Amino acid sequence: MRICLIGAGNVGTQLGLAFYKAGHQVIQVFNRGASRAEKLASLISSEPISSLQNLKNGADVYILAVKDDAISDVFNQIRSYLSDSLVMHTAGSVPMTIFTDHSRHGVLWPVQTFSRSHKVDMRGVPLAITGNIPETTLAIEALAKSISDHVYHIDDTQRAFLHLAATFASNFSNHMYTLSRQITEAQDIPFDILKPLIQETALKIQRMSPEEAQTGAAVRRDEGTILRHLLLMKENTEMKEVYELLTKSIQSSSENAG
Amino acid sequence: MRICLIGAGNVGTQLGLAFYKAGHQVIQVFNRGASRAEKLASLISSEPISSLQNLKNGADVYILAVKDDAISDVFNQIRSYLSDSLVMHTAGSVPMTIFTDHSRHGVLWPVQTFSRSHKVDMRGVPLAITGNIPETTLAIEALAKSISDHVYHIDDTQRAFLHLAATFASNFSNHMYTLSRQITEAQDIPFDILKPLIQETALKIQRMSPEEAQTGAAVRRDEGTILRHLLLMKENTEMKEVYELLTKSIQSSSENAG
Repeated sequence: MRICLIGAGNVGTQLGLAFYKAGHQVIQVFNRGASRAEKLASLISSEPISSLQNLKNGADVYILAVKDDAISDVFNQIRSYLSDSLVMHTAGSVPMTIFTDHSRHGVLWPVQTFSRSHKVDMRGVPLAITGNIPETTLAIEALAKSISDHVYHIDDTQRAFLHLAATFASNFSNHMYTLSRQITEAQDIPFDILKPLIQETALKIQRMSPEEAQTGAAVRRDEGTILRHLLLMKENTEMKEVYELLTKSIQSSSENAG
Repeated sequence: MRICLIGAGNVGTQLGLAFYKAGHQVIQVFNRGASRAEKLASLISSEPISSLQNLKNGADVYILAVKDDAISDVFNQIRSYLSDSLVMHTAGSVPMTIFTDHSRHGVLWPVQTFSRSHKVDMRGVPLAITGNIPETTLAIEALAKSISDHVYHIDDTQRAFLHLAATFASNFSNHMYTLSRQITEAQDIPFDILKPLIQETALKIQRMSPEEAQTGAAVRRDEGTILRHLLLMKENTEMKEVYELLTKSIQSSSENAG
């Protein structure tokens, strides 16, 4: 496919590299900051542009890999270039209906967290896709399958819930690491001690459900340990509140499961 | 060292295998359930026992790898066999002072979660150790270093806090996976979609601090996305409460860091 890639941030860069590798022709890479557009374009034999007025007509697909709250604005700037090309965005939290008055549109959301420096193998990244009509869904599916082995049809409603679930699975679990680091730092304990445990906890749910994998004082209803933990946090009301609510939530989840 | 290993559960089994591999002599393995004692003993050329009355005198070290709340009771049953041998437990949440009237004692806590079925390389497992006097600390350190490359001196107070930190890092992060799975299940979305994201989130903090790795609507103060998330949970008061408190906690952590 002939692709115009709009956005050379973390998601745009990973997608551009994957499209190139899969044999697609990324005819243009747009980024407001010219240097990032140039950097990516040079890697994937593409043309860098830093003004949307230089966007070419007639690509097969226009992919908006820009910040969630910029999608609508960028779409309005490029719609005159689109004719009947496919347009899609890559955001988990934005409904497809943002494109509703364009005839062929959809979403391709890579369900992964990308860092600029760290290369990700896109074939292992789950892609949640949807299109506004069967024809666009099929076109997006073909494009998605050309770069990933894990393509899922996820409609707008499901994607909203999946984005919420990803918030728990990633943003909130990362915050648990932050709180644990606050505790170790205050006691001059190297945070490194906890890294293998964090890895193994994440690995464990590849083999069993998180409900089955749950361990610790909360699920054991070990009131002695819970009380000792609470005493250690008596100066830290906020952290204690998180501890108490999550302990309650673990116990209530295990009740419902049992 | 000549070791009596008391307990052939997950921790006891992993330690027994590691001691054997490191060339120590595990002279006896005790487990109340005889079959587990026999199974482990057969793997490490040891003698299985299922009654503490058969415990041998004169081992260099007696290791209590039993449930946290059984340590005190088991210690009372075996103290007449100990003479001046070293005795230690393997629990994160139990103070060393439980052994206080025995002359040589300490703790060796593997900071990792073990599953029966899944083999762990003990050389990569951090061991948090302490002894009641310099001589026992050194002996425990030597034993620990013979099986792991990551040995840390952690006193009783630090270990209590480290155990609390591990609760956040492991038990609570796992619960985040549970909540995310509850959301995907209710929407007929395969939980598998989130597994690579969970892995990468845990991997990311090997390269940067969790504070730096934090992403998502909370840290961005993206009120629109937060509001849409809250609407999706309007029927689920408990989950919504967790979401709101963790969003607040992320914002307060990022304020303090910034």
